[in-house]
Amino acid sequence: MTRLSTTTQEAATATEWGRKDLLGLEDLSAAEIESILDLAASFKGSHPLSEAPLKRRTVAFLFTEPSTRTRSSFEVAARRLGCEVLGFQTAASSLLKGESLLDTIWNLEAMGIDFFLIRHEHSGVLEPLAPQTKASLINAGDGAHEHPTQALLDMFTLREKKGKLKGLKVVIVGDITHSRVARSNIHGLKKLGAKVTVCGPAALIPKGIEKLGCAVSHDLDRALEGADAVNVLRLQLERQKQNLVTSVGDYYQAFGVDGARLEAHPDLIVLHPGPMNRGVEISSAVADGPRSAILEQVSNGVLVRMAVLSLLDSWRTANGR
Amino acid sequence: MTRLSTTTQEAATATEWGRKDLLGLEDLSAAEIESILDLAASFKGSHPLSEAPLKRRTVAFLFTEPSTRTRSSFEVAARRLGCEVLGFQTAASSLLKGESLLDTIWNLEAMGIDFFLIRHEHSGVLEPLAPQTKASLINAGDGAHEHPTQALLDMFTLREKKGKLKGLKVVIVGDITHSRVARSNIHGLKKLGAKVTVCGPAALIPKGIEKLGCAVSHDLDRALEGADAVNVLRLQLERQKQNLVTSVGDYYQAFGVDGARLEAHPDLIVLHPGPMNRGVEISSAVADGPRSAILEQVSNGVLVRMAVLSLLDSWRTANGR
Amino acid sequence: MTRLSTTTQEAATATEWGRKDLLGLEDLSAAEIESILDLAASFKGSHPLSEAPLKRRTVAFLFTEPSTRTRSSFEVAARRLGCEVLGFQTAASSLLKGESLLDTIWNLEAMGIDFFLIRHEHSGVLEPLAPQTKASLINAGDGAHEHPTQALLDMFTLREKKGKLKGLKVVIVGDITHSRVARSNIHGLKKLGAKVTVCGPAALIPKGIEKLGCAVSHDLDRALEGADAVNVLRLQLERQKQNLVTSVGDYYQAFGVDGARLEAHPDLIVLHPGPMNRGVEISSAVADGPRSAILEQVSNGVLVRMAVLSLLDSWRTANGR
Repeated sequence: MTRLSTTTQEAATATEWGRKDLLGLEDLSAAEIESILDLAASFKGSHPLSEAPLKRRTVAFLFTEPSTRTRSSFEVAARRLGCEVLGFQTAASSLLKGESLLDTIWNLEAMGIDFFLIRHEHSGVLEPLAPQTKASLINAGDGAHEHPTQALLDMFTLREKKGKLKGLKVVIVGDITHSRVARSNIHGLKKLGAKVTVCGPAALIPKGIEKLGCAVSHDLDRALEGADAVNVLRLQLERQKQNLVTSVGDYYQAFGVDGARLEAHPDLIVLHPGPMNRGVEISSAVADGPRSAILEQVSNGVLVRMAVLSLLDSWRTANGR
Repeated sequence: MTRLSTTTQEAATATEWGRKDLLGLEDLSAAEIESILDLAASFKGSHPLSEAPLKRRTVAFLFTEPSTRTRSSFEVAARRLGCEVLGFQTAASSLLKGESLLDTIWNLEAMGIDFFLIRHEHSGVLEPLAPQTKASLINAGDGAHEHPTQALLDMFTLREKKGKLKGLKVVIVGDITHSRVARSNIHGLKKLGAKVTVCGPAALIPKGIEKLGCAVSHDLDRALEGADAVNVLRLQLERQKQNLVTSVGDYYQAFGVDGARLEAHPDLIVLHPGPMNRGVEISSAVADGPRSAILEQVSNGVLVRMAVLSLLDSWRTANGR
Repeated sequence: MTRLSTTTQEAATATEWGRKDLLGLEDLSAAEIESILDLAASFKGSHPLSEAPLKRRTVAFLFTEPSTRTRSSFEVAARRLGCEVLGFQTAASSLLKGESLLDTIWNLEAMGIDFFLIRHEHSGVLEPLAPQTKASLINAGDGAHEHPTQALLDMFTLREKKGKLKGLKVVIVGDITHSRVARSNIHGLKKLGAKVTVCGPAALIPKGIEKLGCAVSHDLDRALEGADAVNVLRLQLERQKQNLVTSVGDYYQAFGVDGARLEAHPDLIVLHPGPMNRGVEISSAVADGPRSAILEQVSNGVLVRMAVLSLLDSWRTANGR
């Protein structure tokens, strides 16, 4: 039985995908990232699929943090490929009874679960787990570490809008310190030849971030000069209570992305990983305006997650799992 | 590809359904309401469907209030038609992060969701949303405003038991002020030629309700004279704390529906939207007795919701969505 | 239409299964228990099923207690057979509005639900419900009463590892008082000819338990002499607060299952219903070691639950439900 339609099969074969898990973008090669983006592109416009290529696969969610968009996007992607999706609430789970995440994974693996979509508040929680299970782990966000599928969908959208990633200048603005989206974007964009500038108040930019290969700015207007895209991060309102920003008004003044600020940059694309705080880090006019690619990101997210599931599935099939 | 079986197709075609959403019964014509009831009737006894006519459609729930029966009924209806149903908990959702309901809808729409089943504590919350999304919105209860599919299943059950709706006299008894079920029933029954009397203590009947075209009574025994059916509303026990009723005992004495009270009306049918407070607004003997149509309502609810989903689907297909 | 594949059909026919519900093992005959275990064995290695034999069946969960493993296991089993599984959270349910469990069942039955998987904190809650519904009830754990599918998977695993159950000696160690797993195992193992010793501190062993036909011990080392298997129960840490155990350290000293204690019993198999408290009632070395059958139990649990659903389905089909 072919597990992928002909086109998809070819794309998957071409990539010679060699990984069981998707833990982050830091470890991936440029070729691996491109293989995900290319396969995602092959899914564009192909819904409804005539087959259910992952029909015998089952997906479980292990989320210790709330999520609408990432969870729904993965669920739509998994169902579109024909996977079974286990209804799973961590709030009512054995995690509450003190069982370790590894024991939970082992138990669900023993029931035949193939893919775990994991969101966890602690950075780096997946790395030690991955070699201990035959199931495939997909990082859906771990602490401030990585959120690889979000960065992949950001890059997919940018590549589609601009025709390439190589040589682009991307500004990521906001709370870099607490952002796994920022880290995954820096890793991914750099590998594909884009330049990244992170921008925000000093209190929200971690020391030494430039070692990841990005530039650092505290002046958004200057950072935007020559930029092709700005990726606007959500400002968690609790940062104000923590005295990391003086006020929402001050923040918007300095780092809010609105029409006036973008006027000088007619070709600049605006991305946002969502959920947005309208009027806090972005104006509604920009969010809903012609240069916003925010809802395209969401649509592309389904394609990227289909691609990730398909490639990991091809690894599983090739390895007799 | 036909999206509906032949019979269903004909029913749907015959109605020439022209709406993207089902927001309430107030705006529907008598013909539109009848087309829903007729299509629902065509589904009776037809389970299992030989096809999955809505196979490529995906349904998401956006519920800010708890629900077992409405949610389960819609889920059974959607699955019986072949829809994908997204597992979605609002409690763990981005609504908690302050994202607006409209942003949540736009995001899920961008992922390919076709139908939103929305329950919300605020009256009238759907009207401004509907024109802003290509997805179809179905009101599953908004504040004290409307709960159209509940009223449709009440009307379906009445029509089936009595052979018609025109000329029937229906008493709705209980907390009219807070009841979206009452409002939707008044609108729907009136349009199809039934007479409605609302009945309850003065504190639970809103001033001016008679402008909707119903009679008002504070004497249940008198209201039941000549009635064909009584629709018994749940008494929320918190109304007692709010001093809207003096005591549960007093309420039951005056407005409780029990065998003694119904003795003089042998052909009267009893409806209840559930969940019941047995011994508060209805006796167990009546609830479980021969004149109760309460569980038939529940069964019919699945058919009515299948009909609503099918008609909105036919609109979507006809409009290239 | 055949509802089971040929092999399964034969197995099911052979058993002449005559029950609508699975409420516990106490009432089952040895032949009935064996028919479940045999059918479960016939499913081994047969995934993926080429058919979806229970395609038109719908399953609903009514859980008033949290659960990962039992719920997920039933969900995987149900989906593997092709059932629809209703996404159902009791936390957001009408149980919260004061509706009785029976009314909830009647309502969902009226929507076409075939199987209810019920977990409830009160012992014996299912018995009075079962005759009042046409749906099939499956006990997924009621108070300290029974948890039949857990005992069935324990027995399946033991039978598979040891080749038989007759004549085996099984020690169940831990909090017997609060354990529905212990009670169901005692009933099931006895019926199939195994000997059971329950072991634990006096405060955690109910008076009169020997009337169920098991031996009682307060000395684990002595109890393990000549034993073929030990079933290690989870120690709820709240038992310490209730002064039922002096300390976790004392408990582990006296009743913890670790390598040193098992050294003299090379063929002894270790079972645990999970979730484990590693270092409390069992050492990690034993839990993850070669004599542990704990993850096999989990895998077998899916097969046993598939068998239970299939047999109840055959009853439903034979009885026109």
